[in-house]
Amino acid sequence: MNLADIYKPIQADLDKVEQSLKEISTTGFPLLSQLLSYTLRDGGKRIRPALTLLAGKFERYDPTRLILMATAIELLHTATLVHDDIVDKSSLRRGKPTVSRTWGESRALLLGDYLFARAGRLAASTGNLRVVELFSETLMTISAGELRQTGITFDPQNARREYFDWISSKTACLFAAATESGAVLAQSPETTITALREYGLNFGIAFQIIDDVLDFIGEETELGKPVGSDLSEGIATLPSILFIESHPNDNIIASVAGRKDAEITARAIEKVRSSAAIDQCLSIASDFASKACQAIHHLPESPAKQSLVSLAEYILKRRK
Amino acid sequence: MNLADIYKPIQADLDKVEQSLKEISTTGFPLLSQLLSYTLRDGGKRIRPALTLLAGKFERYDPTRLILMATAIELLHTATLVHDDIVDKSSLRRGKPTVSRTWGESRALLLGDYLFARAGRLAASTGNLRVVELFSETLMTISAGELRQTGITFDPQNARREYFDWISSKTACLFAAATESGAVLAQSPETTITALREYGLNFGIAFQIIDDVLDFIGEETELGKPVGSDLSEGIATLPSILFIESHPNDNIIASVAGRKDAEITARAIEKVRSSAAIDQCLSIASDFASKACQAIHHLPESPAKQSLVSLAEYILKRRK
Repeated sequence: MNLADIYKPIQADLDKVEQSLKEISTTGFPLLSQLLSYTLRDGGKRIRPALTLLAGKFERYDPTRLILMATAIELLHTATLVHDDIVDKSSLRRGKPTVSRTWGESRALLLGDYLFARAGRLAASTGNLRVVELFSETLMTISAGELRQTGITFDPQNARREYFDWISSKTACLFAAATESGAVLAQSPETTITALREYGLNFGIAFQIIDDVLDFIGEETELGKPVGSDLSEGIATLPSILFIESHPNDNIIASVAGRKDAEITARAIEKVRSSAAIDQCLSIASDFASKACQAIHHLPESPAKQSLVSLAEYILKRRK
Repeated sequence: MNLADIYKPIQADLDKVEQSLKEISTTGFPLLSQLLSYTLRDGGKRIRPALTLLAGKFERYDPTRLILMATAIELLHTATLVHDDIVDKSSLRRGKPTVSRTWGESRALLLGDYLFARAGRLAASTGNLRVVELFSETLMTISAGELRQTGITFDPQNARREYFDWISSKTACLFAAATESGAVLAQSPETTITALREYGLNFGIAFQIIDDVLDFIGEETELGKPVGSDLSEGIATLPSILFIESHPNDNIIASVAGRKDAEITARAIEKVRSSAAIDQCLSIASDFASKACQAIHHLPESPAKQSLVSLAEYILKRRK
């Protein structure tokens, strides 16, 4: 199933989210408008706002509030990407130079702050305090998790646990907020809210594992950034962690970290690519996607539920 | 009147704000707790939370909600300082090395994000959506204003207007949010809310002008940062703008900017110090402080009102 088919139950409202993003990019101040257009109109897949809209379909679907919240979620996501690119000193994002590379780190920092604030105002405009609190807690979790990550040195013994903690806070937490907020705004019963939050959390973990696999096996033209960028920065993701677990005498993280040696990095990437680690990662991601679907299994059948199930299958097969 | 006397009507609740800041610094994650303690427990004057509490004294004083909001305002202020120090590449803040200098820019950036989020959650926990929206709008104004400032090249013709636009968004806007939110949470009538917002806005402009004057005439030991730091970065504040207005052939900003020449900078600082510009600035600051008091003149007499009037006088005389 392709994304257009999956999005069918909410396509009209997702178009309105896109329209909102366009309107938000128009401000009275040219540099800000330029930066907003650059970051918000880059043809992302809009999976997070789609999840908010789909999760809002199980009870009293309230398109106005859901569109506001879905837009807030996409803005929050964008803000974290803009700040991440500063922290990671990344040059490319989705095939385009990053804001920090093109306009400098100061402007990228301030743009991210503006996006957080704009997102917060949208969340508040839903009129629902619970989703505003959820919104703030999500940003707390993401930033505290990233901060924690800056202090971690690679230790093969703890690496797998650290990795799951890290991707839960940096990625899965926002997917969970996307589905939970949709369910809250639809005034779903608590059991449905919990089920949809669980879906989002497990979906997010699967999503991030695939991201990290693609960093090894993807094509630069499709990824929009260099292959092996995590490993070359000495960052341990699941593929390299599993590789080291089965090759305890070949600590590729330790041998790559801090060296900036393209040949050593290329060799390490090739080792991981051709090892069993990739298939193991795909299998683990698949387990999390199944868990996501399992969490909503008891909800009544509907086109939205079918889309959530299909989306969990879709992300396992994505190539960018 | 000293600050302790001015704070008397709200001292007990201001102590609870201090207590909240201490509690917020205790998290399950040591690096985060360390960074929070470092930034939140540095003995600032807590003028902004005091303003929220004082502004909440004119109608139904609700200490629980006001303390939450006053704490949120102080956190928001702290977050903007942490990010400002990255943008300005500052080494010192209140006599201590900045977070970005000590722990690096990435950690400072993530700490600021966490503080924004934590502040937002506190604002939401007041249960009042209007103050949450005000909170988000304030951060939008601050970050958009700072972003705008990054694109401005000094032009003596527009410098004064640009300066007032800039300090309104970077400083006064947060003071206005402090008083407005206090008034909103006290369920004040709209005329009182507007009056207290006007007070905060004008107070904030006076506050920033004095800050900029102190950057020229203060003592490094009292300021906790080098004297003339704005000018040495080529940033035009009111003292240098007024100096250039009356010495059109001596553009000290143009002669200092980008040179990093300590002698040229020291000479420029001395020129401004010994010129009429300093007294003119003090007089303009005094006018804004009067405007602030004028805005609340019609409100009934009370200890809180007296404190607001005294605080506006106090900031004109502060030396740090």
